[in-house]
Amino acid sequence: MHWLTLERNDADALMKQLYRQLRHAVLEGRLEPEERLPSSRELARLLGVSRNVVLEVYEQLAAEGYVAPRRGSGTFVAPGARYGLPRNDAPSSGSSSEAGAEADLVDFRTGVPLLREIPWKTVARSFRRVCDRTPSNAWGYGAPEGTPALRESLARFLARSRDISCSPGDLVITNGAAEALCITALLLARQGKTLVVTEDPVHLHFQQTLRLAGTELYPLSVDEAGLRTDELPRNVRPGAVFLTPSHQFPLGGTLSVQRRIDLAAYAAATECLLIEDDYESEFRFEGLPVSSLRELVPSATVYIGSFSKILSPALRLGYAIVPSHLGEDFRRIKYDVSNHTSSMEQRIVADLLDEGVVERHIARMKRFYREGRKRLVRNLADAFPGRHEIRSAGAGAGLHLVVRFPGLVFDAERCSRIEARGVRIHPVEGHAIRKGHYGEWVILGYGNLSFDAMDEGVARLRAALDAEMA
Amino acid sequence: MHWLTLERNDADALMKQLYRQLRHAVLEGRLEPEERLPSSRELARLLGVSRNVVLEVYEQLAAEGYVAPRRGSGTFVAPGARYGLPRNDAPSSGSSSEAGAEADLVDFRTGVPLLREIPWKTVARSFRRVCDRTPSNAWGYGAPEGTPALRESLARFLARSRDISCSPGDLVITNGAAEALCITALLLARQGKTLVVTEDPVHLHFQQTLRLAGTELYPLSVDEAGLRTDELPRNVRPGAVFLTPSHQFPLGGTLSVQRRIDLAAYAAATECLLIEDDYESEFRFEGLPVSSLRELVPSATVYIGSFSKILSPALRLGYAIVPSHLGEDFRRIKYDVSNHTSSMEQRIVADLLDEGVVERHIARMKRFYREGRKRLVRNLADAFPGRHEIRSAGAGAGLHLVVRFPGLVFDAERCSRIEARGVRIHPVEGHAIRKGHYGEWVILGYGNLSFDAMDEGVARLRAALDAEMA
Repeated sequence: MHWLTLERNDADALMKQLYRQLRHAVLEGRLEPEERLPSSRELARLLGVSRNVVLEVYEQLAAEGYVAPRRGSGTFVAPGARYGLPRNDAPSSGSSSEAGAEADLVDFRTGVPLLREIPWKTVARSFRRVCDRTPSNAWGYGAPEGTPALRESLARFLARSRDISCSPGDLVITNGAAEALCITALLLARQGKTLVVTEDPVHLHFQQTLRLAGTELYPLSVDEAGLRTDELPRNVRPGAVFLTPSHQFPLGGTLSVQRRIDLAAYAAATECLLIEDDYESEFRFEGLPVSSLRELVPSATVYIGSFSKILSPALRLGYAIVPSHLGEDFRRIKYDVSNHTSSMEQRIVADLLDEGVVERHIARMKRFYREGRKRLVRNLADAFPGRHEIRSAGAGAGLHLVVRFPGLVFDAERCSRIEARGVRIHPVEGHAIRKGHYGEWVILGYGNLSFDAMDEGVARLRAALDAEMA
Repeated sequence: MHWLTLERNDADALMKQLYRQLRHAVLEGRLEPEERLPSSRELARLLGVSRNVVLEVYEQLAAEGYVAPRRGSGTFVAPGARYGLPRNDAPSSGSSSEAGAEADLVDFRTGVPLLREIPWKTVARSFRRVCDRTPSNAWGYGAPEGTPALRESLARFLARSRDISCSPGDLVITNGAAEALCITALLLARQGKTLVVTEDPVHLHFQQTLRLAGTELYPLSVDEAGLRTDELPRNVRPGAVFLTPSHQFPLGGTLSVQRRIDLAAYAAATECLLIEDDYESEFRFEGLPVSSLRELVPSATVYIGSFSKILSPALRLGYAIVPSHLGEDFRRIKYDVSNHTSSMEQRIVADLLDEGVVERHIARMKRFYREGRKRLVRNLADAFPGRHEIRSAGAGAGLHLVVRFPGLVFDAERCSRIEARGVRIHPVEGHAIRKGHYGEWVILGYGNLSFDAMDEGVARLRAALDAEMA
């Protein structure tokens, strides 16, 4: 047993070392089946350790089947315990997403709020309050639909800010909007419904999540008034129509009331579900919030919202308003997918809603985004006079602009060359299901850019596009 | 327009009221298509509001298609905007899971840790530290696999506490163990693999989550040494074998090394995946941690763990160690299901791991659970001398006992009658796929019971079972 080498530490560590080495010796075949192990007294003397250490290790090895004690004759290596143990010490490449290499890049990324303004100190204070007043038994497993406290606060918030009337019992709290969509897709799949009508273009992430359960997408075009309802299929019956009616992503249109009514009639005639992702509806800079599609057809609409833009994507808190006849299935699938959403986050956000923090933050951020948007529009006008077109420019909403540069197609190579000049833009084609219609259009997100970064980004973009056109 | 009634508040509220009422009037048909609206000046005078309020509302209604301005002749109700608006004011029944009616019930629920001992004040302090030192740009969208900080801390923790060697790049952070299993099931389904071998009995929640993607389960029996590998199917090729080798749920056995080797050979021969849920492996009261199944076959094992028992179910933080050839697909599905797990929770738990809080808490809780288990065993011996049998009594591990009461079958009616006496027990049959084998067995969870509650629970159970046998 000369190969046993123990490092002197405390008793527990010795035991661990001995256990590990004997185990490996059995697995590797160094200790052969039926081989007799030294008696515990003998091995303890040999290693200079207490006999109890050896006894405990032998017991453990016996319990797991590596060795077998035989009354009166000692401990033997058990048969069938030899195994070529594979090595697992080659480090696999951990992908680090916090690389510093991108430090100087101006990324016109969409959907990211102004991160430096997230009121974390307020959130931390809220957490302390929550810890103080939550009874310990509330920190176990919760209901799949979420804590009553958050659902009640959220229902009031939606009534105040979105003119949405729903009861707390209609709400299911999810891990971001993505999970709400995932659950809906799984629910449809369970009903055998595998065809979903969507806007085209529409956020690539939504496409992927809908496809998770094997769903096929049926793309309809989008114009300034949103989804082209005249293209709704009459020959096939989809399980659902997915859309972003308040502020179409990425093109920015608002679904007109005529089309809303078309959709409601369509849903009634085909008995399909409407899935309304209320994307960035909170950041409308002019006028009042657009009404929800759900209001027209509450019994057939799954409404999806999230706190990612209005608080922080770091929270991963979303929700769905679910028609009552689907409520039980929806909650059951939520339970199967992830049990329930973090009670810690739910209680914090309920507190932030009750204290008015969320609404004050939205109001404050709107001013930033309104200014940012104006500045970006002006910068583009200065940099590309007569050489660009802004889509849905009138509808001041959201955290991005969609811009066309006639004569330039933004394929992967072009985008790489532009990025090499220190600015990243996002082609609309990346979100198109049917390719080839939006080649000249790009998305410029301004939510998380300081004014300086934005100015610099447009200057770099101008230099890059001048080079492209040269 | 006498039906317009505005309540005097601030300008924004007036605008909102006017918008809502006009919109409803159009939808309900009170304002008919092609009907001319009063001029903005006229309506403003009529209502005694500023003309700007009316102008803004008209503009908003026009943007959404309710009305159409005609140059020089005024604003008209648009055609196609009439719609029988459904009422949505009947409150649906919100299910409250925090009811106080159960206050006096002693629930021998499994899998819930001792909630009153969760160190929330320490967690809140950790959150403050995290807020202070996290740069604001790290609070945006993160990588689907989780923050590098947590994956590094977790890899070190697993090496220290579980003798598991994995690199941070192999880890994917999930919303609890359930989501890790859900992603694995979706991944298998995407590969067209719809048959999964499982232990029987095995936690009902695991069964449901595996079935999410349409998977069929192939049940194998379980004995004191875990999954009966001699029952592994030879005529069909499963996509995966799911098991809880460290501490089988619910029966409590530890998979013997011979069976581990059988499984490894089976996985190699059939090219199936092994899914190892390391259920409650942290709470072993005697000897060292059982080694992981993954150690033998890292290239074919998805290892699933969670912080629900060792910190709190309220956090919903789990993880998977994924073989490198499946890493990309796994991360992609994680992204589609829920983007990524809360960065807030990830950063807090990374901090708690780095500060040694998690390990100290586990060590502390082990003492509670060891004592609780002893006391429950003793209580049962006193209450049911010669009338009960404890399963896997030797293996001191986990947060529950499995107990047989010969001659009593715990069907739903009997459990209800027992519950009427103030004590809730959980039949093993609830977790059985093939029914009829464990009728006399119940699960008694002691993790979240004070000693007093436990004593009272056993006394009530004795009274209840005496009544059942009378």
